[in-house]
Amino acid sequence: MNHELLKGKRGIIFGALNELSLAWAVAEQCYQEGAQIVLTNTPLATRLGKVTTLAKKLNAPYIEADATSVEDLKKLFSESQKQLGGKIDFVLHAVAMSMNIRRGNDYPHLNYSYYNKTLDISALSFHKMLQVAYETDAIAEYGSVVALTYIAAERAIAYYNDMADAKALLQSITRNFGLAYGQKRHVRINTVSQSPTPTKAGGSIEFFDRFYEISNRTAPLGNASQQDCADFCVMLFSDYTRKVTMQNLYHDGGFSTTGVQMPE
Amino acid sequence: MNHELLKGKRGIIFGALNELSLAWAVAEQCYQEGAQIVLTNTPLATRLGKVTTLAKKLNAPYIEADATSVEDLKKLFSESQKQLGGKIDFVLHAVAMSMNIRRGNDYPHLNYSYYNKTLDISALSFHKMLQVAYETDAIAEYGSVVALTYIAAERAIAYYNDMADAKALLQSITRNFGLAYGQKRHVRINTVSQSPTPTKAGGSIEFFDRFYEISNRTAPLGNASQQDCADFCVMLFSDYTRKVTMQNLYHDGGFSTTGVQMPE
Amino acid sequence: MNHELLKGKRGIIFGALNELSLAWAVAEQCYQEGAQIVLTNTPLATRLGKVTTLAKKLNAPYIEADATSVEDLKKLFSESQKQLGGKIDFVLHAVAMSMNIRRGNDYPHLNYSYYNKTLDISALSFHKMLQVAYETDAIAEYGSVVALTYIAAERAIAYYNDMADAKALLQSITRNFGLAYGQKRHVRINTVSQSPTPTKAGGSIEFFDRFYEISNRTAPLGNASQQDCADFCVMLFSDYTRKVTMQNLYHDGGFSTTGVQMPE
Amino acid sequence: MNHELLKGKRGIIFGALNELSLAWAVAEQCYQEGAQIVLTNTPLATRLGKVTTLAKKLNAPYIEADATSVEDLKKLFSESQKQLGGKIDFVLHAVAMSMNIRRGNDYPHLNYSYYNKTLDISALSFHKMLQVAYETDAIAEYGSVVALTYIAAERAIAYYNDMADAKALLQSITRNFGLAYGQKRHVRINTVSQSPTPTKAGGSIEFFDRFYEISNRTAPLGNASQQDCADFCVMLFSDYTRKVTMQNLYHDGGFSTTGVQMPE
Repeated sequence: MNHELLKGKRGIIFGALNELSLAWAVAEQCYQEGAQIVLTNTPLATRLGKVTTLAKKLNAPYIEADATSVEDLKKLFSESQKQLGGKIDFVLHAVAMSMNIRRGNDYPHLNYSYYNKTLDISALSFHKMLQVAYETDAIAEYGSVVALTYIAAERAIAYYNDMADAKALLQSITRNFGLAYGQKRHVRINTVSQSPTPTKAGGSIEFFDRFYEISNRTAPLGNASQQDCADFCVMLFSDYTRKVTMQNLYHDGGFSTTGVQMPE
Repeated sequence: MNHELLKGKRGIIFGALNELSLAWAVAEQCYQEGAQIVLTNTPLATRLGKVTTLAKKLNAPYIEADATSVEDLKKLFSESQKQLGGKIDFVLHAVAMSMNIRRGNDYPHLNYSYYNKTLDISALSFHKMLQVAYETDAIAEYGSVVALTYIAAERAIAYYNDMADAKALLQSITRNFGLAYGQKRHVRINTVSQSPTPTKAGGSIEFFDRFYEISNRTAPLGNASQQDCADFCVMLFSDYTRKVTMQNLYHDGGFSTTGVQMPE
Repeated sequence: MNHELLKGKRGIIFGALNELSLAWAVAEQCYQEGAQIVLTNTPLATRLGKVTTLAKKLNAPYIEADATSVEDLKKLFSESQKQLGGKIDFVLHAVAMSMNIRRGNDYPHLNYSYYNKTLDISALSFHKMLQVAYETDAIAEYGSVVALTYIAAERAIAYYNDMADAKALLQSITRNFGLAYGQKRHVRINTVSQSPTPTKAGGSIEFFDRFYEISNRTAPLGNASQQDCADFCVMLFSDYTRKVTMQNLYHDGGFSTTGVQMPE
Repeated sequence: MNHELLKGKRGIIFGALNELSLAWAVAEQCYQEGAQIVLTNTPLATRLGKVTTLAKKLNAPYIEADATSVEDLKKLFSESQKQLGGKIDFVLHAVAMSMNIRRGNDYPHLNYSYYNKTLDISALSFHKMLQVAYETDAIAEYGSVVALTYIAAERAIAYYNDMADAKALLQSITRNFGLAYGQKRHVRINTVSQSPTPTKAGGSIEFFDRFYEISNRTAPLGNASQQDCADFCVMLFSDYTRKVTMQNLYHDGGFSTTGVQMPE
């Protein structure tokens, strides 16, 4: 699908790692819709993932940055504006990591050093990127910022663990920074609460397949796919949604408002 | 703005009365984006409004129907499919009326005959149109239905009166029919919770101007305008939002998630 | 349990039919906590149920009233104040009926005459009772009004049918009348969103047992029982909750904020 | 008011500093209702506040603890059980501090070292206390844990600053730990979203008086006072609310569900 929705727009995409990444599909769709983008990820991701391949394919500068480092973020925004030739029109935040999940520490037995890391990487990074952009006036008037989240931020899902807390914090940052940045530059900030998607991060969650299946069966339209997510993000970056801000938008085939399912 | 987002799509627009109507702007934008549409309204509206002028301009059949009459709705859907040459891809419901508001009966002094009429016109009409479409299989796979609503459905606003109850009912119908129709035909059904807009219906509300101003000042992006609403509806009718259903989407410049405002 | 929480208070309890009714247990607990109450139900309920037995046991006047009749409600409030010796301190609304459920018309095939009846009995009755009380100033300063509801008002549950819409309407009335009555007399109005409970009304819902079980397994504390509901309502009628109003309070063992359950 | 609602119960109250503290009033009311309590606060608070005076008055052991220290929390729970003679029935968490607020760093100009401290003191402390209690099985079956929060967790309020994020995180911890602890011991965990209250912490917020006034005028019952909060917490600690868990309960005179206010 291509309707030149992002023609002339400049964006930064955080978090593309490999073909399964949500950010990967978003980057591809943005490119197809006419945007120029910068890709960014950590040095570790550069080595382990395929983001540089994607960068070549999309003719996109790849700029390494640790999203928890204010210094790195400053360089990223300044360098991106230089390379893209102007202020940034849209940003995707798709950054999340939990060592507690990886190490199998369940929610009532968290390691707090890991927990702080979960919050820092998955939520504070969003505040930091916004604060850097705000202070350096890096985002254009009516620019659009989207972060990916999950319904565990509203309803307890045991195996989503401390990432649920990080997503709740991420959504709070969205509202609070949305107020400040909306008043300053009409920048809109939203989260997309996406269906479970079989990405690398998703795959590290215990029982992910069971999750995915229950969700897919419950949602009347089924789970939203990686490509669906890309389409939806493009819409939020486009000029068709200029007055939507500080919202958490469920993109989940109706899962969030479906209650108990009955036998067919 | 035109990105041919609705090229080849067929739609029905309820509720265009005059240039101030939200439905008016939605119809125009749908037309610009390449859709073929049918306009519909009541015989009274035909006489009092300018909907036939719009119909000519958009080369759109105009089919009279009382949205509370199942018979009329049946004819409307069957005739629309004939004239547009296939199943319906999208529907806009922008129908609301309260005699209690018009007559100045405030919320703790309602006339129940009027109250029933408010519910029938502003909410049951939505169920009826969906039931007719469902039973006659009039909407295409992944078709998109949108109804307009207002935040008074969630937070009490004295002067919005019994229309607040009608909108709460409308949003409930959206969820419940969204489940049924999603399972049957992947039809998605959502409401757009729009900023106060100076339409004819809005104008009949006491203190509307004060409403409008407070809302405009509170929302960090200001109120969403009639044209903003049209753009947003187009995106919900497009293929970019195929997995969004059973949602109430705030389209309000951030009003809904902004709390107490502070002095500047 | 008895802590004389309602000593000296006067209440009206709608909807007690038999020992399984939520209202039955609420009435008993109110009595135990020292309240004087009036029981009310329809003439049909008088014949089919055992409410007069309860009335004797609780030394409570039983006053017949059709909750959809403004005339009956006027008599009820005026007579209740006479018999109890003063203004009313609390009211329980536990009134719900759907002919669509009884006749097996599922949600996309509603009979609209039945649908109107569902709304009238299950939701408009609440507005009517409040309007009568408001206009005749029948409720004491800081009085407490509670209506029973169910989470289907927020999340679609296919077999709950048109009752879901009625409950959404009921909750909207709660907010809007809560604003008006709060400003006038500090009367607080809330809904209790109760776990599925095996009452007579519940039993008429298809697959109720399956409902009950899923809910019981999902909620970390299990379903709230009839007696739990009675305790919770008493606390809402008591002076310990004088600043709670216009809320929908989930009383469901945690069901509402629990997401996908995992295998044990 | 005293109905012996907490007779025989043992509780721990965090965060009483002086007569204005919410925790101070809660402690007094718990004592009046028959509970035995332990008071706890930091060494700094011991010196600056009057908590030891309160401890004497309520015949309550005072145990110093830094709520961010797992070690201190372990000692607190173990010592409290020893001194009170059994498992803990209820806990109040009223702990919050933001250096960003104190130093006047507004939300888009946060100091991240302070921000981490805000989260650690105001939110992570809640997880830590629950995890310690969970691992040492310190809370009795159907015990009740309450944390105080504010509506800024849901709606952006500029001057509430990073505390809004901390409260959103606190509420997420409530849901997620509520699931785990509910399944293990039927322990219920809730937050009370209290009206602005002129405590020492409240007073440090810029424009607090303006806040307080707007909130008081908007809420149809006016702001909930310190004593109202104490009454409500007692109810949540009592056996009348045994099936309420994982909820955020608005205790705000109706503020949260009131929209735009109109002129009188």
